[in-house]
Amino acid sequence: MLNELDLSRKIEKNNYKIIMNDLEKKLEFLVRKVKDLGIPVILVFEGWGASGKGTLINKVILPLDPRLFKVYTINNFNEEEKLRPFLWTFWTKTPQDGMISIFDKSWYRKALVERMDNRIEGEELNSVFNDIRSFEKQLADDGNIILKFYLHISKKEQKKRFKDLEKNDSTKWRVTEADWKHNKEYEKYIPIIEEMIEETSFEYAPWTAVEATDSNFATVKVFSKIIEVLEEKINFKESKNKKDIEFNAQETNKDKVKTSLLSNIDLTKSLSREEYKERLKICQKKIRELEYEIYMKRIPVIIAYEGWDAAGKGGNIKRLTERMDPRGYEVVPIAAPSKEELAHHYLWRFWKEVPKGGHITIFDRTWYGRVLVERIEALCSQEEWKRAYKEINEMEKQFSNFGAVVVKFWLQIDKDVQLERFRERENNPEKRWKITDEDWRNREKYDLYEEAISEMLVKTNTKYAPWTIIESNDKYYARIKALKTVIKALEDKLNEK
Amino acid sequence: MLNELDLSRKIEKNNYKIIMNDLEKKLEFLVRKVKDLGIPVILVFEGWGASGKGTLINKVILPLDPRLFKVYTINNFNEEEKLRPFLWTFWTKTPQDGMISIFDKSWYRKALVERMDNRIEGEELNSVFNDIRSFEKQLADDGNIILKFYLHISKKEQKKRFKDLEKNDSTKWRVTEADWKHNKEYEKYIPIIEEMIEETSFEYAPWTAVEATDSNFATVKVFSKIIEVLEEKINFKESKNKKDIEFNAQETNKDKVKTSLLSNIDLTKSLSREEYKERLKICQKKIRELEYEIYMKRIPVIIAYEGWDAAGKGGNIKRLTERMDPRGYEVVPIAAPSKEELAHHYLWRFWKEVPKGGHITIFDRTWYGRVLVERIEALCSQEEWKRAYKEINEMEKQFSNFGAVVVKFWLQIDKDVQLERFRERENNPEKRWKITDEDWRNREKYDLYEEAISEMLVKTNTKYAPWTIIESNDKYYARIKALKTVIKALEDKLNEK
Repeated sequence: MLNELDLSRKIEKNNYKIIMNDLEKKLEFLVRKVKDLGIPVILVFEGWGASGKGTLINKVILPLDPRLFKVYTINNFNEEEKLRPFLWTFWTKTPQDGMISIFDKSWYRKALVERMDNRIEGEELNSVFNDIRSFEKQLADDGNIILKFYLHISKKEQKKRFKDLEKNDSTKWRVTEADWKHNKEYEKYIPIIEEMIEETSFEYAPWTAVEATDSNFATVKVFSKIIEVLEEKINFKESKNKKDIEFNAQETNKDKVKTSLLSNIDLTKSLSREEYKERLKICQKKIRELEYEIYMKRIPVIIAYEGWDAAGKGGNIKRLTERMDPRGYEVVPIAAPSKEELAHHYLWRFWKEVPKGGHITIFDRTWYGRVLVERIEALCSQEEWKRAYKEINEMEKQFSNFGAVVVKFWLQIDKDVQLERFRERENNPEKRWKITDEDWRNREKYDLYEEAISEMLVKTNTKYAPWTIIESNDKYYARIKALKTVIKALEDKLNEK
Repeated sequence: MLNELDLSRKIEKNNYKIIMNDLEKKLEFLVRKVKDLGIPVILVFEGWGASGKGTLINKVILPLDPRLFKVYTINNFNEEEKLRPFLWTFWTKTPQDGMISIFDKSWYRKALVERMDNRIEGEELNSVFNDIRSFEKQLADDGNIILKFYLHISKKEQKKRFKDLEKNDSTKWRVTEADWKHNKEYEKYIPIIEEMIEETSFEYAPWTAVEATDSNFATVKVFSKIIEVLEEKINFKESKNKKDIEFNAQETNKDKVKTSLLSNIDLTKSLSREEYKERLKICQKKIRELEYEIYMKRIPVIIAYEGWDAAGKGGNIKRLTERMDPRGYEVVPIAAPSKEELAHHYLWRFWKEVPKGGHITIFDRTWYGRVLVERIEALCSQEEWKRAYKEINEMEKQFSNFGAVVVKFWLQIDKDVQLERFRERENNPEKRWKITDEDWRNREKYDLYEEAISEMLVKTNTKYAPWTIIESNDKYYARIKALKTVIKALEDKLNEK
């Protein structure tokens, strides 16, 4: 595939100037349009050492308003990055609506540099390709334009460029031993690059191989491709905006899941105050010890709390963390998304909070909002929340593959207990702020929620991230069960190693 | 001073429970109040190894709504941090209005651990104290409550705690060789800690030394102090809110600075197109080389562009960056602050953008907005913008002390040329978006701006961060002068080393 490129192609200076004058204006115009329409754009530049990525990126950004793009240069991962799943680095850098993220090298380093240096193969390589595919697919499904360029030069040309760089005092440091090694073994890398392009080129995230011997030719080819795709996407978006998007929140009965999952739970389970106090003390001590152990072994832990309003999430979390070392855990409460969060993929704000190895993040409500409140209140389309089960499973799989412990709790109470607790809150001046009109409105949609919860529990109960239902009519019982579940999950992980 | 503490003080369990029940409720209530009033709070915990900082912080946060605070644990600085002035780490973590930032160890590590290990003394230590004082003063002036606690235990007690930790498999790793060394040389550190407390205890940011042998006693003392100060500050703020704050934007004539600074500039300076093209090529090549050199030497560079509307900032920046490597520079356009930015100290958003060593950040408009548009439009009080000259000088001094090159441009044009360019923009469909009603309104306030600019140039023209006035009636001349100024500043710095 790379061999089919004609690397001798070039564009003469005078022609180039005329063509570029036009292309630059077009690009500037389209980028302003993209901003107005709120389309996020991702541009990826990969290529041989000294193939001219830097210069090319500079040409792309010069005509643009600096408010509308951001360039990220990806080299070795730093400490913070190494302690997290590798896509964390890139999720956190995805553009918000109407903005452009430009990557000088990217998530493909795993499939290129690291693979070339023989650090990645077989099963791990497959998993890298899978992760990349689901990452790009999720962003594309959310409306991102993704364009990937590979800058290609010949072995001879690369050698010549390295030598030129070495001649100049201010640039010779840029040529490293690794560069020369790569040049020497040039042929060996060709099939690796080709495989990467084949494995990860899709209509929604295509690769363009660019003949980069002549910088003018490469520039024109890259500009033309970006312009072509932006125009296409803008036209599509503008025609789509004319029709109203239909939300189908009520249609959910079609693939109704049996609610037996929730109704068969024994909510009478309880503990006496004495038993509770005794066990709490033991469990909390154990948790603190395990917290240190997972810190030492650099294991990241994600604990997700979901449950009915007034099911006791707050009190449960408090008992879990009461004796923990605050340096090792963080509670992240999830409320309605901010403006900035709404302008990103819905999983972006959760990716940002992924704990690093050795740390525990406790989510008070989670990404499951997508298939609960956002589904019921039609805050996203039916297509979107149906897609979410798979997206969420993929994300949790990536956490788990990285070695994270993922614990998910559903705090279950029955309708009567909820009513009782709502009334109690209203009557207690110190607790009144905890109850809002929204809670009452949610309660009216109890049946819709019950259905959504059941479907969620069925479709996202995986081996790597299983749900634990916590019977929470009795708070004492619920707290101890949650603590014990966390203890068991951490112990299992520690024994695994 | 530390010797005067009675380390045997304690509170019995039953008493403690009763007292704490009350204190926890009070603290929770006050923190909600602080949120409503939009007061930012900073709590700093320093203390001997094993003095119980972690446990104490956990007790402070348990009664609080997790949305209202964030705990930061400061250990060794990571790569990103080492490449920036040391206060960058902390500026970026200052709380927004109504929020609490809790530091488990802090900016004092420079005056404690690093000093103890003999890495910091003499002139450098003085500079650390100065930086800390101006950091805390700036935040306090902006309305932050700052409370600092030092947890004190005896040498014997520390030894006992280390031994206890070592007995337990899950905690023995926490005691390091350095810990034992510190315990052995305990007496040596006493004067260091006392000096730190003396040098940095102020009414607006007081230290409280805490007897920490008995965890109950320490907890009650810390809670009581926080509650006392929050109550005081809340009362003050509530009484202050009743009076209207008076803005005095028009009063500026009192200390009028002569505008001769601007009027004596020779705006007829110009270059022919041929001269311009020739010099541009040479300068741009030179800049690219210097960009690599400062990267190699890890020198951070800050280039600040200010100037009249339509003075040509955008075009000037474009020529500066045209041949640069995008991996080494970033253009940061400064517009009106966002909601999040408004909820922080006005310098916070600039601190976030401080380049790391080896990188160049170009600000298109800057922190000088405080003494220009914010002054003229009364977006801050007179007291605030008058204080800003000193605050800005302090910040730039810190950049410079860290080894940064700071270049500041004022792009000067005369009133006629401005009018001409405004009209041209209005008549050109491609440029029309560049001109707004605001530009015309600003022009009406020309004289007020002229006065503010002159005062700014006089009060912030320092040896470490000098202003360069760029005569910009002729764009060619202006671009070459800016390029040459940057080249000279970089060369001077490189020769210095």
